[in-house]
Amino acid sequence: MARGRAATTAAIRLDVVDRPEAISAVSDATAAIGGRIRTLATVRPIDGEPRLVEIELEVEGVSEEALVAGLRDLADVRTIHLTKALGTVFGKRIIVVGGGAQVAQVALGAVSEADRHNLRGELISVDTIPLVGEEQIAAAVRAVADLPRARLLVLAGSIMGGDISRAADELRAVGIPIIALNMVGSITDHVDLVVSDPVQAGTMAVMAVADTATFDLDRQRGRRY
Amino acid sequence: MARGRAATTAAIRLDVVDRPEAISAVSDATAAIGGRIRTLATVRPIDGEPRLVEIELEVEGVSEEALVAGLRDLADVRTIHLTKALGTVFGKRIIVVGGGAQVAQVALGAVSEADRHNLRGELISVDTIPLVGEEQIAAAVRAVADLPRARLLVLAGSIMGGDISRAADELRAVGIPIIALNMVGSITDHVDLVVSDPVQAGTMAVMAVADTATFDLDRQRGRRY
Repeated sequence: MARGRAATTAAIRLDVVDRPEAISAVSDATAAIGGRIRTLATVRPIDGEPRLVEIELEVEGVSEEALVAGLRDLADVRTIHLTKALGTVFGKRIIVVGGGAQVAQVALGAVSEADRHNLRGELISVDTIPLVGEEQIAAAVRAVADLPRARLLVLAGSIMGGDISRAADELRAVGIPIIALNMVGSITDHVDLVVSDPVQAGTMAVMAVADTATFDLDRQRGRRY
Repeated sequence: MARGRAATTAAIRLDVVDRPEAISAVSDATAAIGGRIRTLATVRPIDGEPRLVEIELEVEGVSEEALVAGLRDLADVRTIHLTKALGTVFGKRIIVVGGGAQVAQVALGAVSEADRHNLRGELISVDTIPLVGEEQIAAAVRAVADLPRARLLVLAGSIMGGDISRAADELRAVGIPIIALNMVGSITDHVDLVVSDPVQAGTMAVMAVADTATFDLDRQRGRRY
């Protein structure tokens, strides 16, 4: 979600009975106190009778106290713990997808650069997955649009094109920029910036999303380094 | 969620009017067709009148067709796209937290090892954040319990203890194991395994969660390498 709104987000983790009506009751009760559910994530099942699931819930527009008071008496709700909204802990996310060798080097640059910015009050994570094959990589590119707090994708490989390039266009259309390594294939015509060195690509990726950096991706669009 | 259930999960991304009642209507309609909401994540706001939010929704127990049919006529729901459940794209997550230099080296080992397993049908992500300070690191350790699909934490630093060790005990109590680098502080007495070399620590972390590896963390518990 947009910057600066995290402070008004109440976050709890609760155990609920694993049936469709339980989530429905939780969201009705949340709406009744004027809360907007931003995140509802099932983190793990708890075996037993009845079977429970543990859920992380982030709600905007209400205090933690009001949220706990609004939910604790529901029949399907068991234990409630206070927790922190994930955005206040893990911040903005750079996603790195591609071949293992290149992903590892991009991560090296990005983690080192994120360290420098996080020391000055930023909060930037570097999330990676090594994958092979056009279909799998294209699916990952499209799925970045579904990841909360994803701010930029780095494509780190030696050859990418075809459906990956189509997926790149779709991702940029929802507002998530892409940096690609200099590589074989059409992908380099479907990204915001092409960088030959993977450590530099990771570094620039972090600079592009950090408020503590003076690096404007808009002014670099279409360039190759 | 547990392995093998992802195949029955319908995933869509939809635009809804940004008001408390909208989520309530979506979850009521989902429960009415027998679906259990596993993930509801607000991925971005869409400015306009009315203001919309884009939401990623994963539902167990119903088909994508039934889910779309059940939601498309709700007053607050606009565009619906089909998408893929995040677990089927990004899989299990190794989380790496600590100092930039060490996190980068653990990531190098973990990404390289994940690459080898993902080539054989596994799906393992390596998610990292460089952080400084007892309070921030302890908060991150606790927040790993709130991350969907987090399977193992690697603590990569030079000195950790105090509240970080308490947070480590809490995280292990919910079933998420921890590997720590060999470092100063009490943390090494509060983790499952201590490994001196960061590349090796990242490699072992991936082996510990990969079904394609013969590495049993239970048999290594308490050891130091």
